[in-house]
Amino acid sequence: MKFTVQKQSTTSRARAGLIETAHGKIETPVFMPVGTLGSVKSVTPDELQQIGAQIILGNTYHLNLRPGCEVISRFEGLHRFMQWPMPILTDSGGFQVFSLAKLSRISEQGVEFQSHIDGSRHLLTPEKVVQIQHCLHSDIMMCLDQCIQHPASRADTEAARDITARWSARCKSAWGEVDDGSQALFGIVQGGMYADLRRRAVEDLAGIGFDGYALGGLSVGEPQELMLEIAESALPLLPGTAPKYIMGVGTPSDLVELVGRGADMFDCVLPTRNARNGQIFTRFGTLNLRNARYRQDTRPLEEQCSCYTCGKYARAYLRHLLISRELLAYRLLTIHNIHFFVDFARRMRSAVLTDTFDAFRNRFYLDYARADRQTCG
Amino acid sequence: MKFTVQKQSTTSRARAGLIETAHGKIETPVFMPVGTLGSVKSVTPDELQQIGAQIILGNTYHLNLRPGCEVISRFEGLHRFMQWPMPILTDSGGFQVFSLAKLSRISEQGVEFQSHIDGSRHLLTPEKVVQIQHCLHSDIMMCLDQCIQHPASRADTEAARDITARWSARCKSAWGEVDDGSQALFGIVQGGMYADLRRRAVEDLAGIGFDGYALGGLSVGEPQELMLEIAESALPLLPGTAPKYIMGVGTPSDLVELVGRGADMFDCVLPTRNARNGQIFTRFGTLNLRNARYRQDTRPLEEQCSCYTCGKYARAYLRHLLISRELLAYRLLTIHNIHFFVDFARRMRSAVLTDTFDAFRNRFYLDYARADRQTCG
Repeated sequence: MKFTVQKQSTTSRARAGLIETAHGKIETPVFMPVGTLGSVKSVTPDELQQIGAQIILGNTYHLNLRPGCEVISRFEGLHRFMQWPMPILTDSGGFQVFSLAKLSRISEQGVEFQSHIDGSRHLLTPEKVVQIQHCLHSDIMMCLDQCIQHPASRADTEAARDITARWSARCKSAWGEVDDGSQALFGIVQGGMYADLRRRAVEDLAGIGFDGYALGGLSVGEPQELMLEIAESALPLLPGTAPKYIMGVGTPSDLVELVGRGADMFDCVLPTRNARNGQIFTRFGTLNLRNARYRQDTRPLEEQCSCYTCGKYARAYLRHLLISRELLAYRLLTIHNIHFFVDFARRMRSAVLTDTFDAFRNRFYLDYARADRQTCG
Repeated sequence: MKFTVQKQSTTSRARAGLIETAHGKIETPVFMPVGTLGSVKSVTPDELQQIGAQIILGNTYHLNLRPGCEVISRFEGLHRFMQWPMPILTDSGGFQVFSLAKLSRISEQGVEFQSHIDGSRHLLTPEKVVQIQHCLHSDIMMCLDQCIQHPASRADTEAARDITARWSARCKSAWGEVDDGSQALFGIVQGGMYADLRRRAVEDLAGIGFDGYALGGLSVGEPQELMLEIAESALPLLPGTAPKYIMGVGTPSDLVELVGRGADMFDCVLPTRNARNGQIFTRFGTLNLRNARYRQDTRPLEEQCSCYTCGKYARAYLRHLLISRELLAYRLLTIHNIHFFVDFARRMRSAVLTDTFDAFRNRFYLDYARADRQTCG
């Protein structure tokens, strides 16, 4: 994997870059749609490409439990299994073990847990996590980390940070044994809401050396202000020659603030999950399509949006599908929301390239705040 | 509407025809996918056109309750509301009133019922049913009928048949008041499993005169043999110059038998509903994709199938999506199943045009029976 910084904003830490992987290039800042189980919920890879998605996520924890590596290896990895020919990043499953699995138990060796599907017992170790991701053949693998809840005591946070650092070193070694140049490995910075623990985590990971670095354990219930403070202190410490990825974040406002602080990559279930509940993201804020005011609305979800859904369908029809629980609703609304996030990252990149990022950020807030007064419910 | 018989089989009653409507031509025999609420569940109109669907169904009962005519009239009808530019047939809702609504009560005037959605009281009359379908602007409207359960006494069946005949005459009058040449009206033959009552129903309807004739009240729980016997006795009595439509039928075997008896049009939820449960139709019989034998199966659902799903995806992946309840599963399996039914009708038509319908029918049974021994579970 190769990363090039193409342009640095002169008024903020925002930057535009290019990641080159075995399955193609990724222009940053980039928003990565989440395809946990080998499918970005309700949409096809063809639709994702049409939307302009450059890279999607898969999840090691989920895909290892179902359908399992022996199935995916029949297809030589996730790309052909799910028919997505472009880059894939796989999360290590650390986050899911702690949020989904029953009775997860940590030891130096790894995490033992019971499957949320059938209660079967499993052990994820740093080595195993690399092996599974090698089998999935993702372009970007993530190290196993221990993500802790918020709030957490300093002692607990420090213990999680420490074990994440040791596991990261073991992931790097395991990666060295399978590395053929086609898969990159990213480290994950933990350290909760303690800036000094984050700093030590960055130092440890940079010492080991990774292709990219992620901030994990953010957007876990803390206020946006605190999230941004932690990101702001940690992001500049990360090697500037590698991509910086904020995991599981966030709202359009989170994204614009984090790009301004130097972040390059994002993933979040917000556009997909909220689409299925009828929350629509637009340049002029969000709208709740269930609202009765859209019952006879012949306009598209967002005027001037270039997505498939806005090119064809009216709010009244989409609302009817949603209220009637028609499956087509989920797809059409997901297409629009993913398009919004992917396009939002693309527009941030354009602004950085023309060194107008501050103006972009101001314009975004002005437009987004119009929601309440105008089209949105 | 114009109907032309293009070819008559010399060895059976099978025929190939052409229906011309305000929204385009329909080649018969034809299978019509069901889009009850203004959406063929999980697929877009673009996908339906790609599959080769020529006409789809909408439902008067459902669409009148939700979203209601005042919404759809904003779009000048169902075509633009749902973005389907080709022909639409709307069922009158008679069947739904009796199967879905609470406390439906019949009088000479019409059917009074409570909505299955919110319990609100409604009255459907022959005149109202025509008005609603005029608002939906379907290319083919259906008369209000009383569909009775099976088995039913002769007296009950006769009463239902009689009121259906009287309602049909009122529908024709109401249609005359709104007719501008863009919407056809079909009559529905009732009479349960009593051949002589069916015969009288045909005579009544032919006396009134419709653009096409449907057999209703079939496939309501009776054995296939009885269904075919009733169809065989009624179909030849219908005017040969009009399309003959069998409502809510059926399996591939039902279709091939009914085409052989002179039927031109079919609709059924079988391909769509069963897709969502993992039952896949193929030339070599059905397969249950949930079966563990498909877990590592790298083949498409059906070898040599030209549908989008078979062109891209393996059984192992589709099974994984289905087992994981991923929304994409329902769409991809629906596309295949609708393609199978639409293509099956198209192949029957080709066979009629080359006067090889009997050979087609024999070949179909030979292939379809191979299922159990070979690929199917």
